[in-house]
Amino acid sequence: MTINLESLKGTYDRYPEEWANWKYLIETVERTAEEFGFRQLDAPSIERQELWTEKEEDSVTDEMYAFTDKGDSEITLIPEATPGRARLIQNRKDLKTPVKWYSTGKRWRYEDVTRGRDREFRQTDIDIFGVDSVEADAEILALAATIFDRLNLENRVKLKISDRQLVEGFLESAGIENTEEVMKVIDDEEKLTEEEFRQELEQTGISSGQIEDVISLTQMKGEFQTQINQISQELSEEFEGRIERLRELGDALEGYGVLEMCELDFSIVRGLAYYTGLVFEAFDTEGELRALFGGGRYDELVGEYGKQQVPAVGFAFGYSPAVELLKKEGRYPVKELETDAYVLTVSDTVRETARELVSDLRQEGLVVESDLASRNFGSQLAYADSINAEVTVIVGEKDLEDGNVTVKYMASGDERKVPVEEAVQEVL
Amino acid sequence: MTINLESLKGTYDRYPEEWANWKYLIETVERTAEEFGFRQLDAPSIERQELWTEKEEDSVTDEMYAFTDKGDSEITLIPEATPGRARLIQNRKDLKTPVKWYSTGKRWRYEDVTRGRDREFRQTDIDIFGVDSVEADAEILALAATIFDRLNLENRVKLKISDRQLVEGFLESAGIENTEEVMKVIDDEEKLTEEEFRQELEQTGISSGQIEDVISLTQMKGEFQTQINQISQELSEEFEGRIERLRELGDALEGYGVLEMCELDFSIVRGLAYYTGLVFEAFDTEGELRALFGGGRYDELVGEYGKQQVPAVGFAFGYSPAVELLKKEGRYPVKELETDAYVLTVSDTVRETARELVSDLRQEGLVVESDLASRNFGSQLAYADSINAEVTVIVGEKDLEDGNVTVKYMASGDERKVPVEEAVQEVL
Repeated sequence: MTINLESLKGTYDRYPEEWANWKYLIETVERTAEEFGFRQLDAPSIERQELWTEKEEDSVTDEMYAFTDKGDSEITLIPEATPGRARLIQNRKDLKTPVKWYSTGKRWRYEDVTRGRDREFRQTDIDIFGVDSVEADAEILALAATIFDRLNLENRVKLKISDRQLVEGFLESAGIENTEEVMKVIDDEEKLTEEEFRQELEQTGISSGQIEDVISLTQMKGEFQTQINQISQELSEEFEGRIERLRELGDALEGYGVLEMCELDFSIVRGLAYYTGLVFEAFDTEGELRALFGGGRYDELVGEYGKQQVPAVGFAFGYSPAVELLKKEGRYPVKELETDAYVLTVSDTVRETARELVSDLRQEGLVVESDLASRNFGSQLAYADSINAEVTVIVGEKDLEDGNVTVKYMASGDERKVPVEEAVQEVL
Repeated sequence: MTINLESLKGTYDRYPEEWANWKYLIETVERTAEEFGFRQLDAPSIERQELWTEKEEDSVTDEMYAFTDKGDSEITLIPEATPGRARLIQNRKDLKTPVKWYSTGKRWRYEDVTRGRDREFRQTDIDIFGVDSVEADAEILALAATIFDRLNLENRVKLKISDRQLVEGFLESAGIENTEEVMKVIDDEEKLTEEEFRQELEQTGISSGQIEDVISLTQMKGEFQTQINQISQELSEEFEGRIERLRELGDALEGYGVLEMCELDFSIVRGLAYYTGLVFEAFDTEGELRALFGGGRYDELVGEYGKQQVPAVGFAFGYSPAVELLKKEGRYPVKELETDAYVLTVSDTVRETARELVSDLRQEGLVVESDLASRNFGSQLAYADSINAEVTVIVGEKDLEDGNVTVKYMASGDERKVPVEEAVQEVL
């Protein structure tokens, strides 16, 4: 047999002991999104390529898993969820706004594989459609912050918040015309040394005075109120509305109790030109400088996929960086395999009783395993131990003659003999 | 803009109101598998093509979404989960048997789209590896039956059970040599008229006497004990072991309390030659004759992917047929959107109080929405109604001056004024 069984680079087998941690993360994110009133949906994992290739300035097309299907359609594994979601919005005129949606699924990009960046990766995409308001921006940020709070990582993560319109206004005030280009350099700032950053800025053709302005902009970071005051001094009155909006955002985040996890940082612009206002990134406060994930407001994009103009704000939570974060925090594994009860059969003659007991315990919602291979006492007990069984219910011939079974508490080793009909109650 | 946004044929957008039903099904299947001690894992959705193309007699290769990736690997979207799972088994020598695994994910096959059969479809694959025993077979069948019991579909579904070795033995006893070929025809029996079935059998070259034998075999179906007695009369002593195993299986299924949902049916052979013993299919008792899903024992297959010989038994639960079944049973939707509370803000001045209330309610795990667009009283109440809010907490200026809010019970219309600090308790 010459089959190459190996998994493809950037794709992973996750055994149950590892997957239990991913599942814990996914369930925490989804449950928190549900509490915030977001509703889960499901959309295809394959789509027409043109959803991406027909859009200008889209950098993901080079990385797509694109191919021709058996019906000659040019299709691709989805590199991200936004166009599919735009279709769901455009196809329904009857949706009551705000539309608050999330979905969890795999995405695929053929790119260099590094820690926390896979070719097949899992995300939860979370968006609010149909409302352009501070409250909607605040709710998205509060949700992102609350997820880390629920994961007990609230001290380890900061949300760095900015406003693309303000950054653009600042650049324009400094007399910079090629603002798009300069913002792309600003987006790379965290990966560059100060020297490299200067060089990249020089290459955009702006003056050395403008370079200093840009550098002073990217150094505006920290506590909300302070940074708002600082940038408002640099900007003309026409930006007063945007500044006021940022101030209200700070108030709202305080109301949600998450302001401590947030700071303003005008070096955050997000590379993607489609963001139209709020932008933010989540960072590990003690880690490397790479963002855990990012998001923001994109009020134009959905309209490009159909007739309805629909404002939107959202983010995509990535699981691979979150798992890395748990590991760095020494919190991994955060979840072990759990088994409520193992039902041990001393011999085949007690099997009938054992099966009924197993069924009754499962009926109560408990996780229950039993012998499937007529193993002896010792190897059954070792197996029960290997699956972290809380109790082992020993069904033995002698005990059973008196109508009893023995419940063994695995942590303490304590045993208790109880009538068969009370066994379920004893375990519960 | 000329982008064709349409989803690909056989792939579907599932809006939250529809997806809630799928999610209910997935959670029921997964929770039941957990109770039975199965552990969730995750494996890639893309794999090398050779996992399927290098295997003989594999019919799925014609239907694969196969292509060459940017690194020149010949890859495919997975049409099924078994080879990936074989890798996970082969790569670990330290796994304690029984290995009981499940995973839920999408699979892809380019085939004709009909009701309950999609090109992108979701399945939960459930297997026990490392044990060849009646108890393992019984546990797989008991799990399949219990899933339908948990879905309150226990009267609507029958598991039809057979044993490929017995069917093969029966055919050999009748002097049939091309047993594989004849079993493929038997597998089609449910889709054919009796006339067509006879014709197909004739084409295999067997005699008219043998045709009658095959027809009498396929008519052996019904209550376990009766059918065991009937086939045991037809078979030589060498099959006594298999017959005894089937008898024990019946006893075990009775012990698990699911025998009523099971019957023997020797017309079930499953087309796939890799099954080595137990085979079964789940049928809608009132519906068309197509199986909801099937499974069985495959003790050779895992060994073909590596050095370890590993017996296995399992099945794949398909969600699209299950949703169709709920619809036919008049049980759809089985799940509606749920919202515990809507917090209504009468004006922007009460927003601070509202936000804290929203946070406190969510902290209790409740699903809570609030206004994001400064809407008026009436449209907020209409929105609360549209999301099936159980209560609306009205935060009004006047009330708030006295430290109160009003809790409105949406079903009855009853209202209760309570102090702000007791609002959470009132809603819980």
